[in-house]
Amino acid sequence: MDFNKFDDRFRMIHEKINVTLNGEPKRLYDASRYLIGVGGKRIRPLLCLLACESVGGKIEDALETAVAIELIHTFTLIHDDIMDRDELRRGVPSVHKTYGESTAILAGDLLFSKAFELCDPKVVKILAEASAEICEGQEMDMSFENRTYVTEREYLEMIRKKTAALIRAATKCGALLGGGTREGIDKLAEYGLNIGMAFQIRDDILGVLADEEKLGKPVGSDIVEGKKSLIAIKAIEKLEGGERERLLEILNKRENTRDEIDLAVRLFENSSAIRYCRRKAIQFVEMAKKAIKELPDSDAKEDLMEIADFVVERGV
Amino acid sequence: MDFNKFDDRFRMIHEKINVTLNGEPKRLYDASRYLIGVGGKRIRPLLCLLACESVGGKIEDALETAVAIELIHTFTLIHDDIMDRDELRRGVPSVHKTYGESTAILAGDLLFSKAFELCDPKVVKILAEASAEICEGQEMDMSFENRTYVTEREYLEMIRKKTAALIRAATKCGALLGGGTREGIDKLAEYGLNIGMAFQIRDDILGVLADEEKLGKPVGSDIVEGKKSLIAIKAIEKLEGGERERLLEILNKRENTRDEIDLAVRLFENSSAIRYCRRKAIQFVEMAKKAIKELPDSDAKEDLMEIADFVVERGV
Repeated sequence: MDFNKFDDRFRMIHEKINVTLNGEPKRLYDASRYLIGVGGKRIRPLLCLLACESVGGKIEDALETAVAIELIHTFTLIHDDIMDRDELRRGVPSVHKTYGESTAILAGDLLFSKAFELCDPKVVKILAEASAEICEGQEMDMSFENRTYVTEREYLEMIRKKTAALIRAATKCGALLGGGTREGIDKLAEYGLNIGMAFQIRDDILGVLADEEKLGKPVGSDIVEGKKSLIAIKAIEKLEGGERERLLEILNKRENTRDEIDLAVRLFENSSAIRYCRRKAIQFVEMAKKAIKELPDSDAKEDLMEIADFVVERGV
Repeated sequence: MDFNKFDDRFRMIHEKINVTLNGEPKRLYDASRYLIGVGGKRIRPLLCLLACESVGGKIEDALETAVAIELIHTFTLIHDDIMDRDELRRGVPSVHKTYGESTAILAGDLLFSKAFELCDPKVVKILAEASAEICEGQEMDMSFENRTYVTEREYLEMIRKKTAALIRAATKCGALLGGGTREGIDKLAEYGLNIGMAFQIRDDILGVLADEEKLGKPVGSDIVEGKKSLIAIKAIEKLEGGERERLLEILNKRENTRDEIDLAVRLFENSSAIRYCRRKAIQFVEMAKKAIKELPDSDAKEDLMEIADFVVERGV
């Protein structure tokens, strides 16, 4: 899909980010801006703006909140990279690798503070609740790493909190600030939630299949970290005997060799786990599209439909 | 001073904290409640409630915001201990020593989220701005550790952000939620700011002079970490020749011996730096008391006056 058509919105988002993250001490503000400066799709603020427009609101109604959501997202990336010991993000050294762990912790905290300085007072509770859910989801994700088995249900609950809650908040806030009806707001929240679920499952697939350059981090790092992605869960469930044992062994140790990672990917493929995940992601996308089907037609609604399809089609 | 007279308020604060920090995953919520469970004076929420009452408001008007402020304070303690590598807090192992660093980072983030879920929407901007200032102040404090000289002016700016901003926010929010006039709110903000300055300077003195049991952490840890406290700044300024060289040497290396710490304390005393800091703290307390002098008389106003004096008299 062609994201260039959103260039005006992206420019407004970036201008607002630059004004917001301008302060002293310079080193702290540099660290908080660093990841935003090296890429990323701004899908969350874009969804917030489009949700606002799809119920008849203007971009300006939701712009500050859209930016606040991107700041919250960036804050979680910085802290997650510290916790997961990820040294690369978006193809560059992560914030704690560049500025040290202490300044990285603070840069995340600063972004979080700035988000609440910036957002519309009407959506503070929505954003604060989503932020608490992100923390709960990340704790679940980390606790899964130390477990041999995780159920699909537990995984879905984890990504609902860790990833989908903020995307849901983005579309819900957009609809609320755009003056949507109670029903319109609920529908757009449901759209965001399902998009978020599909987005994370697709991310798990890309973490295994994409090439390193596009991914911006080492392929298979989820396997090394023993992440219980839906692919891993399904593969363990479907494989039998020696293959199953071998996969469990690779997932439950750290510092895997290249050969072990390649073997895990082949086992994922053999088990049809990847196919299962693709289908699951598509189901969530269909639910997202269905949620907003009855909204009055508009350009923004069309864009939301297109973005839904993009989520499962995107390369990275 | 006798804090027992505030027992009813402390009970209300604790009940609200317990309801707020009750959730899953249990380990994450346990970590977020841990420091609150092992002590601390709750001086910030108390000041918030008293500020509210001093302008004619009821405790209930400010209770949720008072608790939110304690959550923000606790969040900063948890993250600061990670950054400063402090292993003890309030006489027990710090959160990251007990739950690991990842869960400690998340526990802080969760407390921050819960604070904004809980606080009155009218004070979100005040709390968010104070939180951003705390981050800026902590970054300044860390950057000072790597510098040989810091001026008194720089130090005062740092503690204004790191410590006084949140205490100022506590009394300002209390006055606002209690229905104070514009002038009343400003006066109570000024009271909080000055109390906060005195509080931090007193803390620096106690970090050098108090005994370990009362302090809840090793005496002289500020010296080992090379913290540029006002005592250190003044001592460097006032000492000459060999004594000055010796003190700079101790402050600028890590892993000091017990003898070196004791020598630094003696040099602080010889230089009259401790006396200077005591006087400075008293000046801030006088400014705090002066700020609220013209408020209508009330029990709450009396309590605020007493607490101001307590700040410079307290043992720990």
